[in-house]
Amino acid sequence: MNTLVKTIEVLGIIAFALTGIYAARKKGMDLIGVYSLAMVTALGGGSLRDIILNRHPLFWIQHYQYPVFLLALSIGASLVEQAFFERRSMVGIVLALDALGLGSFSASGAYIADQLGCTLFISSILGVTTGIWGGVMRDIVCNDIPYVFQRTELYATCSFFGSWTYLLVYRSLENDIVAATACIGVTFVLRMLAIRYKIKLPV
Amino acid sequence: MNTLVKTIEVLGIIAFALTGIYAARKKGMDLIGVYSLAMVTALGGGSLRDIILNRHPLFWIQHYQYPVFLLALSIGASLVEQAFFERRSMVGIVLALDALGLGSFSASGAYIADQLGCTLFISSILGVTTGIWGGVMRDIVCNDIPYVFQRTELYATCSFFGSWTYLLVYRSLENDIVAATACIGVTFVLRMLAIRYKIKLPV
Amino acid sequence: MNTLVKTIEVLGIIAFALTGIYAARKKGMDLIGVYSLAMVTALGGGSLRDIILNRHPLFWIQHYQYPVFLLALSIGASLVEQAFFERRSMVGIVLALDALGLGSFSASGAYIADQLGCTLFISSILGVTTGIWGGVMRDIVCNDIPYVFQRTELYATCSFFGSWTYLLVYRSLENDIVAATACIGVTFVLRMLAIRYKIKLPV
Repeated sequence: MNTLVKTIEVLGIIAFALTGIYAARKKGMDLIGVYSLAMVTALGGGSLRDIILNRHPLFWIQHYQYPVFLLALSIGASLVEQAFFERRSMVGIVLALDALGLGSFSASGAYIADQLGCTLFISSILGVTTGIWGGVMRDIVCNDIPYVFQRTELYATCSFFGSWTYLLVYRSLENDIVAATACIGVTFVLRMLAIRYKIKLPV
Repeated sequence: MNTLVKTIEVLGIIAFALTGIYAARKKGMDLIGVYSLAMVTALGGGSLRDIILNRHPLFWIQHYQYPVFLLALSIGASLVEQAFFERRSMVGIVLALDALGLGSFSASGAYIADQLGCTLFISSILGVTTGIWGGVMRDIVCNDIPYVFQRTELYATCSFFGSWTYLLVYRSLENDIVAATACIGVTFVLRMLAIRYKIKLPV
Repeated sequence: MNTLVKTIEVLGIIAFALTGIYAARKKGMDLIGVYSLAMVTALGGGSLRDIILNRHPLFWIQHYQYPVFLLALSIGASLVEQAFFERRSMVGIVLALDALGLGSFSASGAYIADQLGCTLFISSILGVTTGIWGGVMRDIVCNDIPYVFQRTELYATCSFFGSWTYLLVYRSLENDIVAATACIGVTFVLRMLAIRYKIKLPV
């Protein structure tokens, strides 16, 4: 994948980690809890994808800088007041980066499953799994009902359409960078629209 | 495995999925939550078995129709009133199919572990794991203490005896269809007796 | 590894299992729940390590005596009054054995990751993961916020320093038995000091 897609993935990992750090601090956890939740939220979805698809070494063992970086981020964020993360502008930034991360993770899940010969539907499921299960694991560890399963603004649904975008564009053009960019674009726009207009699933 | 055993497995997957769908709706989840819990409950135990035993591709990636089918089931069930699933006759049907599913999953877990050279005890543990962990994961995601670990009518115990039935019959007759059928029979009858006479473990 | 390290591992597994059994009984679970939590707590961290590092068969399938032993322990412990485990002397013994187990699991995680060519930091993360995730899974199944993530006496931190001790001693002396013993010693002493002087992380 090229630099743009890579950069977006890193931005997404930061956003995912920040939601984990925020949740951990809200539950009164110490640095160990904060770091663990940053890791689980940011790397959990991709780890599940790699384990389901038998892809080794796991992506964060291969990109061994990620866990070091997340430790630095966790320590840094622990020194900042929690109120900072609740500022309106900060919430907006994290929501936007999180939507980019959701898109890039969806693309990576769909891409890898497709490369390994999975059917289109299974590949889209792996895209969604990669995109949302980090957050699901975060909520499970925090003893909350997973946020994305609740009747809130579209989240997994954006990932689902993004994953299909990746798969259909890739099947048409055989160009994974264009497909990934399209996937991130569709996921991001859908998610922003869902937040802006409070769009929820009918059932 | 033959058609009978295969049919029973599919019936079990439907029953497991229905308990997941019911739990998700009770927690007020939307279609994403409903489908995710249907997947986790129906496919979680078998996925854990495949991951523990390093068996790839996972059974639901190989039988790629299952996730599509579960999506259709989830959409269908979302259109039905929740009260429908609480009807006495519906509860009875789901309990019976669930017991068949428990039996067929126990047989598949014990069968696969045994084929891979595990000891009898480990194979029986894998039978029980395959049978019960879908439901355990459902309850974890729903933020409940797993139902099967509570002091209720025998459930995992039926799976344990069913798994041993499989293993002993298979070792005697070298016929996996007879062994699987015996396993499903023993699990089903034990479970029905446990429900009927409210049999619980003494400790 | 030699007999000393092996013995300490078994003592640790017993201690981990006892904390699982205690938690299960406190939640009113029956023998199935007690045994499942004993297994999850004692074998969960090592299983996660093996799955992350793609190491098969999992250590408890290879050491197939562990699950049998844990069943015997679970049955035995179910016959003892819960108050017995709350006795001051019993709590002290379990805390001490648990600290030994934490050390030996940290050593095994760091050792295996290092052997497989992981970086030092990743290896230390795997050491901590092996040491603490059994307990994390226990708390997740029990529907509690993981104890080790809360603002309590140092636990994961001891495992982290223990893992680094292993890695640095091993890199210096190329002797895994000395390194494992040093890891267990450092983890144990740090943990005992943390409990004695109520040492917590500053953030």
